[in-house]
Amino acid sequence: MSDPWVVGVDIGGTNTVVGVVAGTGGEPEAVRTRPTNSAGGADAVVDDVVRMAGEVIEEALDRRGGDRDRIVGVGIGCPGPLDLERGLVLSTPNLGWTNYPIRDRIAHRLGLPAALDNDANCATLGEWWRGAGRGVRHLAGVTLGTGIGGGLIIDGKLVRGASGTAGEFGHTTIDLNGRRCACGNYGCLEAYASGPNIAARAREGIEAGYQSVLVDLVEGDLSRITALTVYDALLLGDRHAHEVMLETAKVLGAGIANIVNMFNPEMVVIVGGVTRAGEHLFAPLRAEVRRRAFDVAVEACRIVPGELDAPGVIGAAGLFLHENGKLLGGAATRASA
Amino acid sequence: MSDPWVVGVDIGGTNTVVGVVAGTGGEPEAVRTRPTNSAGGADAVVDDVVRMAGEVIEEALDRRGGDRDRIVGVGIGCPGPLDLERGLVLSTPNLGWTNYPIRDRIAHRLGLPAALDNDANCATLGEWWRGAGRGVRHLAGVTLGTGIGGGLIIDGKLVRGASGTAGEFGHTTIDLNGRRCACGNYGCLEAYASGPNIAARAREGIEAGYQSVLVDLVEGDLSRITALTVYDALLLGDRHAHEVMLETAKVLGAGIANIVNMFNPEMVVIVGGVTRAGEHLFAPLRAEVRRRAFDVAVEACRIVPGELDAPGVIGAAGLFLHENGKLLGGAATRASA
Repeated sequence: MSDPWVVGVDIGGTNTVVGVVAGTGGEPEAVRTRPTNSAGGADAVVDDVVRMAGEVIEEALDRRGGDRDRIVGVGIGCPGPLDLERGLVLSTPNLGWTNYPIRDRIAHRLGLPAALDNDANCATLGEWWRGAGRGVRHLAGVTLGTGIGGGLIIDGKLVRGASGTAGEFGHTTIDLNGRRCACGNYGCLEAYASGPNIAARAREGIEAGYQSVLVDLVEGDLSRITALTVYDALLLGDRHAHEVMLETAKVLGAGIANIVNMFNPEMVVIVGGVTRAGEHLFAPLRAEVRRRAFDVAVEACRIVPGELDAPGVIGAAGLFLHENGKLLGGAATRASA
Repeated sequence: MSDPWVVGVDIGGTNTVVGVVAGTGGEPEAVRTRPTNSAGGADAVVDDVVRMAGEVIEEALDRRGGDRDRIVGVGIGCPGPLDLERGLVLSTPNLGWTNYPIRDRIAHRLGLPAALDNDANCATLGEWWRGAGRGVRHLAGVTLGTGIGGGLIIDGKLVRGASGTAGEFGHTTIDLNGRRCACGNYGCLEAYASGPNIAARAREGIEAGYQSVLVDLVEGDLSRITALTVYDALLLGDRHAHEVMLETAKVLGAGIANIVNMFNPEMVVIVGGVTRAGEHLFAPLRAEVRRRAFDVAVEACRIVPGELDAPGVIGAAGLFLHENGKLLGGAATRASA
């Protein structure tokens, strides 16, 4: 009997990633990434997910053998807040969906049983199961993307809270009277350090008169600045891009210091495109955490980038396996650590 | 065989409270409150604790009978961060102690086995065991006093973290470039909403020219303003005191919204003298939480004042019983709820 496989789906504000993951974990057997069709609404995104799932299943079976029975289910990670019991997206500041039955729609279209959790919880589970957080008992995961999310594993268990919405780290206030956030609040971490807000801060600085190579990189069209172009400018030694990155690190450092003082985790694992900035981000970020949090909590905590290419896909697959009584558990799967 | 009793000790930045608590919980059989001798250092405070413990033990035995064998141990709540394993106070921004072996000093002097935890964890345990939080599975406790502390109970278990310092809610940043805090950081919740900082903000307003009845209440000596005199002025209809309270509520609301978005608790219980302000504090505080946190998490969460006069003492006693295998457990002891 061959190892069961699970389809992992990671719906993000910018990209949607779908992969086939072996029951033993590890990077997906086959994977597809496509821009999330946010303009088309939830149904259009489900259409894309179903098509991509068909493609990766076929590719994986072609390459590794077996028949479609080998696919036992689908795990879905989606921005929230969600209603986990009913499988609904309650609202998504970055996609604009409301009360959408994402879990059952995908399950029905694929003819597979499905599990659903917040995208950031899935990414955290992925890094805990198969990435940087293997064997860690108290882990906080932070996802930096179109939005900012978080997941908490305390004493080896994912924290879901009273109504399944725990971990909304991006929407914690770190600047009482600060920038307006997509959620309607002011001064949320996400209003500074999400990809689009990193780009917006860079753009605002240029509009206010800062010189920057960014202007050339986007051929004068400032609306084309993204977090990635800011990173490109940084690598070219651009001073403005450097300052934008320092402010990102400072704000994230304050938010992560809050996590460190509140939970005293062994590890904070940060995932998402912005982590490509490497030590340009992590060195000032760690310094800010050290400046703000209690020494004893800082000493207990490593702050690291994730190790997986597709933590959300792997974690969503792991979630399905876990909910259906087939393994998972950071410590239990530590063999390969 | 009579019900075992435990001495509960709650060391605060302003007052120290010592009581004898029955193994079944409830308000102490006998209790003493004295100003914490912070100028005298840690040894002087231990002297006071030992004297007060002798007095409450004698009083309780006189009134309810039994002999000293009835006292089975002592539970201690103390500001942190602490080293729980070694029973040390590592540092206390508000008392100035460093690496002080508080647990063993008190245990030795009283000739009783002792348990130690953070004062705010003890207060949270107290409200969970015998107060407002009975039967709640996901509870956040917030203590407002000389400092601001916090405790987290997730899935019926107190969260201690990787090195025992979880719950340092007062030292979470809510205003990136805000007021300097006693911990060395900027913009901590405690820098605004602790008792001394409520008083300081009221004083600063008067120094900046605001009219206030507070000036009369302290006979012109602004250094005598405390959170309590601000509350007195509020009851007299003082506009400045009202604004200080609104700002307190706003800042606390932002901090508690962070807890609500991060943990999705069923209840946040707030204890400490400042809660005497009642709806003057709680109404604008709840409004601020509603403004900042996700609806679905806000709807799941009640924000309430504590019910106990001495939650720290009761929780410290409960901690001792729990660590020594004699009961505790919010849900398990719900009979009287």
